[in-house]
Amino acid sequence: MPSVSGIGETALHVTDLDCSVRFYHQLFAFTTIASDDRFCAFRVNEQQVFLLFKRGGTLEPIRIPGGTIPPHDGQGRLHMAFTIPATEWLEWENQLRVQGVAIESTVEWGGGARSLYFRDPDGHLIELATPGIWDRD
Amino acid sequence: MPSVSGIGETALHVTDLDCSVRFYHQLFAFTTIASDDRFCAFRVNEQQVFLLFKRGGTLEPIRIPGGTIPPHDGQGRLHMAFTIPATEWLEWENQLRVQGVAIESTVEWGGGARSLYFRDPDGHLIELATPGIWDRD
Repeated sequence: MPSVSGIGETALHVTDLDCSVRFYHQLFAFTTIASDDRFCAFRVNEQQVFLLFKRGGTLEPIRIPGGTIPPHDGQGRLHMAFTIPATEWLEWENQLRVQGVAIESTVEWGGGARSLYFRDPDGHLIELATPGIWDRD
Repeated sequence: MPSVSGIGETALHVTDLDCSVRFYHQLFAFTTIASDDRFCAFRVNEQQVFLLFKRGGTLEPIRIPGGTIPPHDGQGRLHMAFTIPATEWLEWENQLRVQGVAIESTVEWGGGARSLYFRDPDGHLIELATPGIWDRD
C-alpha cells in the first residue's frame, strides 16, 4: 500500500470572500500564499494550507499550463479543526474575545485534552483543539 | 499572537456513510479510531484525523459528559487534499486503478510537484499532492 503523509489542504466555501479572508487573517495571522477574486490560500505550517473559495466561483474546470483543476463547491455549515498548543488555551480564549468571536461551546475530552468551537462568518463550525482529543478511547 | 500547530481535522459530509467508509478504507487503509451510525473518524497520522459525517446527522447539538459539540452539516462537492510522498506517485496511480477509481485530471505545478484529482462516492473532489505544490510562486 502506498502511504499518505497527511492532510495537505482543507477548504471552506464562503459567501463573501473578502470578509472571510479578513476574519481568518485577523484571527490566525496566517500568511497568504496565493489569492485572487476566486480563492485565498493561507499557509498553516510547512505542510498544510487552508483554502477559502468563493461559493459558486469554481463550478467549471480551470485550465492552467500544468493541467486542469476540476470544479468543486460547497454549501452548509462545514466543520474543521485546527490544533493549538495546550499551553496557549488561555491566549486563544483571549484572542477570540479581542476579535469579538463568541465561543459557542467547549468540550473536555479527558486526559486534559479539550476543544473550543466558534463560527466563522458563514456559520462554519471551527474547532480549536489541544493535542490528544482522539486519545480518549 | 497565540499559535496554530496545524490542521487537526477535516470533515466531509456524505450521503451513504457505510459506502464512503468502505471507499476511504479500501483506498487509504486508514485506521478507524471512532465510529457510529453518525460519523467515522480515520487516523491519517499522529496529528491529523479525517472525518466522515452522515449528511443531516449532526443538525442538533450533541451533549456528552465533557460538554456540547455544536451542529454542522454540508452539501455540495467539497475539496480537500492529502499529501503523498513524491516517490509513491506511480504506486498511487496503480492503487486508484486497482480500486476502480478514475483519475479526473492531473496538474504539474512546476519544480516537479504534482497533483492528481479524483471523486469520492459523493463527488467530493479529492486531491493527492506531492510536497511543494504551493512553492511555485
